[in-house]
Amino acid sequence: MPKFDNLTLHTDFYEINMMATYFEKHMQNRHAVFEVFFRKLPFGNGYAVFAGLQHVIEYIQDLNFTDDDIDYLKEVTNYPTDFLDYLRHFKFKGTIRSALEGDLVFANEPILQVEGTLCECQLVETAILNMVNYQTLIATKASRIRTVVGDDPLMEFGTRRAQEVSAALWGTRAAIIGGFDSTSNVLAGKAFGIPISGTHAHSLVESFGNDYDAFKAYAQTHHDCVFLVDTYDTLKSGVPSAIKVADEMGDKIKFAGVRLDSGDMAYLSKRVRELLDNAGYEDTKIFASNDMDETTIASLKMQHAKIDVWGIGTKVITAFDQPALGAVYKMVSVEHSDGRMKDTIKISGNAEKVSTPGKKQVWRITDARDGKSEGDYITLSDEDPRQEKSIFMFHPNYTYINKTVENFNAQPLLQPIFEKGKLVYQVPDLKEISHYAKKQVASLWPEYKRELNPQKYPVDLSQKCWDNKRDIIEKVRNYVQQINF
Amino acid sequence: MPKFDNLTLHTDFYEINMMATYFEKHMQNRHAVFEVFFRKLPFGNGYAVFAGLQHVIEYIQDLNFTDDDIDYLKEVTNYPTDFLDYLRHFKFKGTIRSALEGDLVFANEPILQVEGTLCECQLVETAILNMVNYQTLIATKASRIRTVVGDDPLMEFGTRRAQEVSAALWGTRAAIIGGFDSTSNVLAGKAFGIPISGTHAHSLVESFGNDYDAFKAYAQTHHDCVFLVDTYDTLKSGVPSAIKVADEMGDKIKFAGVRLDSGDMAYLSKRVRELLDNAGYEDTKIFASNDMDETTIASLKMQHAKIDVWGIGTKVITAFDQPALGAVYKMVSVEHSDGRMKDTIKISGNAEKVSTPGKKQVWRITDARDGKSEGDYITLSDEDPRQEKSIFMFHPNYTYINKTVENFNAQPLLQPIFEKGKLVYQVPDLKEISHYAKKQVASLWPEYKRELNPQKYPVDLSQKCWDNKRDIIEKVRNYVQQINF
Repeated sequence: MPKFDNLTLHTDFYEINMMATYFEKHMQNRHAVFEVFFRKLPFGNGYAVFAGLQHVIEYIQDLNFTDDDIDYLKEVTNYPTDFLDYLRHFKFKGTIRSALEGDLVFANEPILQVEGTLCECQLVETAILNMVNYQTLIATKASRIRTVVGDDPLMEFGTRRAQEVSAALWGTRAAIIGGFDSTSNVLAGKAFGIPISGTHAHSLVESFGNDYDAFKAYAQTHHDCVFLVDTYDTLKSGVPSAIKVADEMGDKIKFAGVRLDSGDMAYLSKRVRELLDNAGYEDTKIFASNDMDETTIASLKMQHAKIDVWGIGTKVITAFDQPALGAVYKMVSVEHSDGRMKDTIKISGNAEKVSTPGKKQVWRITDARDGKSEGDYITLSDEDPRQEKSIFMFHPNYTYINKTVENFNAQPLLQPIFEKGKLVYQVPDLKEISHYAKKQVASLWPEYKRELNPQKYPVDLSQKCWDNKRDIIEKVRNYVQQINF
Repeated sequence: MPKFDNLTLHTDFYEINMMATYFEKHMQNRHAVFEVFFRKLPFGNGYAVFAGLQHVIEYIQDLNFTDDDIDYLKEVTNYPTDFLDYLRHFKFKGTIRSALEGDLVFANEPILQVEGTLCECQLVETAILNMVNYQTLIATKASRIRTVVGDDPLMEFGTRRAQEVSAALWGTRAAIIGGFDSTSNVLAGKAFGIPISGTHAHSLVESFGNDYDAFKAYAQTHHDCVFLVDTYDTLKSGVPSAIKVADEMGDKIKFAGVRLDSGDMAYLSKRVRELLDNAGYEDTKIFASNDMDETTIASLKMQHAKIDVWGIGTKVITAFDQPALGAVYKMVSVEHSDGRMKDTIKISGNAEKVSTPGKKQVWRITDARDGKSEGDYITLSDEDPRQEKSIFMFHPNYTYINKTVENFNAQPLLQPIFEKGKLVYQVPDLKEISHYAKKQVASLWPEYKRELNPQKYPVDLSQKCWDNKRDIIEKVRNYVQQINF
């Protein structure tokens, strides 16, 4: 049975096929730069929350073709022996710069950059996208939900609907980065230090045959009790049984809450609140979980539903309304046969889809007085806006939308993670990451954060970066025009 | 860094909390039966293709709380020492019956059944749902796409958009079960024996600076060539360069195809077909990949697009239009304190959501003459319709929809997988599974298979099963009515 301990072959076949060509053409050590970016923010949100870096680091550190891997490739391809030998001794010695987990990131800016030999850059494309696409998507979805619930506790409950094991585990970590407080998944709790939550299922009640006996048994065996009250009838049986057990147990338990898992949440939560309050349990919370997302939560809040704690499953762990982030990994610069680096582009008939050539940096520009966001400013990597007194920021496609910014701070988004194969970054504790993410979200104007029709956060190119792009588009156009086979 | 080798804690916290209650109440060895089912077919499809069993088997075989796991639980819970000791020595000794991978399954019928002690049944709920929900969803999506493309080759290309690593790997296996032919993921190819496919990316062209040099280099280093032709300009540069290289290389390569990855696929494919045919490459195939699913493929087929081979990514690997299957795991029978088994139910205000009590079997009823499907017939486990000359099949909610079937074959859906903890089933080779799935789909009337508004396949209860359900609903109603705290 497969264990997938080593993910070196967790890549698209075409990556290795290209490596074979580079190797046989003696180009395997040509220098190259690739960048990850996405073209559109998910869910119509105003920002995304970057996540996935920890898994990427782990993956890069483990890269290594085993003898088994080489045997497999020998069996299914015609690769020459010298290339297979090259793979056998392959080590990742490249440089990776990346946004940090919890950073806010936006469309059409590099969020992760790989620099190294053509071969090493190519090999890691697929896995990096696989990890960053999913985890950034989930952190962003979680952050949207956090925006709507305010300070209410948020529990991630989605393992049973997650897209297989690693989505459940890394996904719940991403949800924590995006603002969730706890997970139902015990393994994720153990691996990532996430608080775990959960009490009992309908089956506990069914195994006793009635609510009262089940709650009583649970209360006799656990101190903190949240009773699931909708197995047979929430208002007639579930809540009254919970109250009776709480009355009988007194100080021996903490009657922390009741959980509603079906039915009309607005109506039921109000009636349950009354029952609890009338019995003197004003501090007992109402937990709700029923296929909810930011839209249904906002609606419940509008209806003044009496829900204190939210258990979110399917909708966050699969990012149900948009289950994929389309981040891509594009070559932006490569060494040519003459030893010089040349910036590269992917052309498209659609203006938004034309990539931006050149090795770049993203600068987060904030007002020096209040620390609030002015926008992101993309430069070529040899520019440093911190040397400038003012910068001219303009929209890369609609250049007449522009502004001059003075008295600003500029923070580079892409931070060194690996330098020539060596890990130079220490992933912080998950608590620190989610605290950091919270601070980033706070620094953003509310207009960029609302869940419906947010204002578009500016992501602008420096003049030099824009000129470079225009020149290269021109060169490609000339190349295509002169083709005459 | 976490490795997730052992998945024993890959479960919801409430499962272990319930186990604690059962253990301390001396109920841990009470006998119970749980069943997995879903309430609604995904994508509006007429059937689902069951998958996930191989991963479930691997998971069950590995179940075992490590010392590390116990230490973690000690740290984050107040579990008493005797319960922790119980977990330390926990072994799964239950019985699992299941549909086989590739079986067609329908809403509201048990597709997997776990029978054992309360504790062991409870522990495995979350992981089983996590695996079966996702893999069944993807196999079903793949089967829908297969229905639309007919016999055209189908390649799974979605790793970069998959929801993390195990979705990419198990998901592509599920896509093969549903009718795909190959995968881009090399590790999945190695682990599951799936043919791998893929040639080169835009970056190969960019690293050479033009299509011709890139294709030439690829052709000099690979025998089978599929050139990606849309980096700069499909019709002016990509395809002419591919033809020129093929002309020059002659017999040294197989000019297998060109791949279109952007632009108007209907238009481009027709123009590209002309260019290839005019150059004498009538056998060279056109590969297409551009965020396609069964709807866009059907539309392209209607437009007589000249596409021969389909590369499907995001839409299949995430089941984009419905990224979760809502299968649940419900207790259907449990031993009470008097030692007798009692059937259990979860009540809901919604008729379709009321579970069906009792340990059951699903019988696939086919016409003895032509082998074609008559419907599924759910009985209690002590019934055997093969003993009957005729069976009366009726809709469980609309009982006036019914028919009497004679001259039938009845095949049990749930097959023994584990018996008292021992694996008694050998997962077939993936090729056999996908061949088996193909046969199952062929046995279904076309009306159940069309992708839009299929006829509803009958899933009926035996009279005994239906009477049992009605009796238990009545009992619960009486219980709720007489509550008087």
